Amino acid sequence: MKFYDCSIAPNPRRARIFIAEKGLDIPKVEIDIVGGENLEKEFLSINPRGLLPVLELDDGTRFDETMAICKYLEDLYPEPPLLGTTPVERAKIECLQRKMEFDGMIATSEAFRNNTKNDNFSYRSLPGVDTVGAIEGLVERGNKTLGVFYHWLEKYLTNSKFIAGDRFTMVDITALCAVDFAKWVELDIPKENTNSLRWYEDVSSRPSAQA
Amino acid sequence: MKFYDCSIAPNPRRARIFIAEKGLDIPKVEIDIVGGENLEKEFLSINPRGLLPVLELDDGTRFDETMAICKYLEDLYPEPPLLGTTPVERAKIECLQRKMEFDGMIATSEAFRNNTKNDNFSYRSLPGVDTVGAIEGLVERGNKTLGVFYHWLEKYLTNSKFIAGDRFTMVDITALCAVDFAKWVELDIPKENTNSLRWYEDVSSRPSAQA
Repeated sequence: MKFYDCSIAPNPRRARIFIAEKGLDIPKVEIDIVGGENLEKEFLSINPRGLLPVLELDDGTRFDETMAICKYLEDLYPEPPLLGTTPVERAKIECLQRKMEFDGMIATSEAFRNNTKNDNFSYRSLPGVDTVGAIEGLVERGNKTLGVFYHWLEKYLTNSKFIAGDRFTMVDITALCAVDFAKWVELDIPKENTNSLRWYEDVSSRPSAQA
Repeated sequence: MKFYDCSIAPNPRRARIFIAEKGLDIPKVEIDIVGGENLEKEFLSINPRGLLPVLELDDGTRFDETMAICKYLEDLYPEPPLLGTTPVERAKIECLQRKMEFDGMIATSEAFRNNTKNDNFSYRSLPGVDTVGAIEGLVERGNKTLGVFYHWLEKYLTNSKFIAGDRFTMVDITALCAVDFAKWVELDIPKENTNSLRWYEDVSSRPSAQA
């Protein structure tokens, strides 16, 4: 296997943390998004959409979605389970994972990508090869949805150690990456959200968080 | 089990087709989105986000995401398989399903919800309880992404009967719902996309398409 990565990007980080939690050592190929390497011919032959991460199998099969990569690795290496062990737990984790992704990751991406006050960014509304310009209203929508994200994060963590219960799962991985990504738009965990702050300190101190 | 449904909405339809393909008969509770029933107290006690569909188990556990519902039902009723039978097939379907969802379903939702020329709509940028107003730029972005959706749909179908290969899967369900949803913004399958048109006729004629 080979993992096409970008060390500063939040979605590849989700997969890297997953890989680290599984104790796997998959060779990485760093792609420089800031330098536009993901939009050059060579990488577009790997993923024509210009997006990361991509997991490539030895036979050339490629998976170009973070959750597909994680599910594939969970199938091959079930321990420790990060996507649930029973039908109910799996469905619960799927529900929560998507909320962390949409309300956290995607909302931050909206707030960040569409803010033309960001000096170091190309002001494109979507990542990869798509070429839609910045849409100003998405900054407000992204910021507002991040408020929803933090509201629910605190609720989920009120009575449990991790977001989906007593065990660290993919839900925590996506939420951790979202919280750190949201720092790019200066929207940190609200100071009164004590359960979220406790959780953040906990999950950030896991060795996988450095992956 | 109980299925909270809305017969005109595209996401509940994805789950209904899935349920029909499995040959299951799950009691349905219709929620009138147009009349705002999803935002009333009673339904918000079922799903505080005001979104559909929701699957409720007999013990009260609820899943409020289409893919979580489908995965749960696939776990319980593996035949016929709609989400893949091997790790590689499952990951491939996850990749393609998300593309149909983001490029097809979500893009149409953007183009539709944010178009203030729609007489019968409340001009809100997101569904459910969120209250962000229409964002005009999302109409163009949605339309453009639908072009990407149709481009890839045709490519995927060039050498295979269904989108993920020889077998009908969740990928076809999401894509079918996206194509029908895109009619709301008058963006039909381009006439030159003969493989997509052949596929559309095929999948639309399955009994499940009427579910």
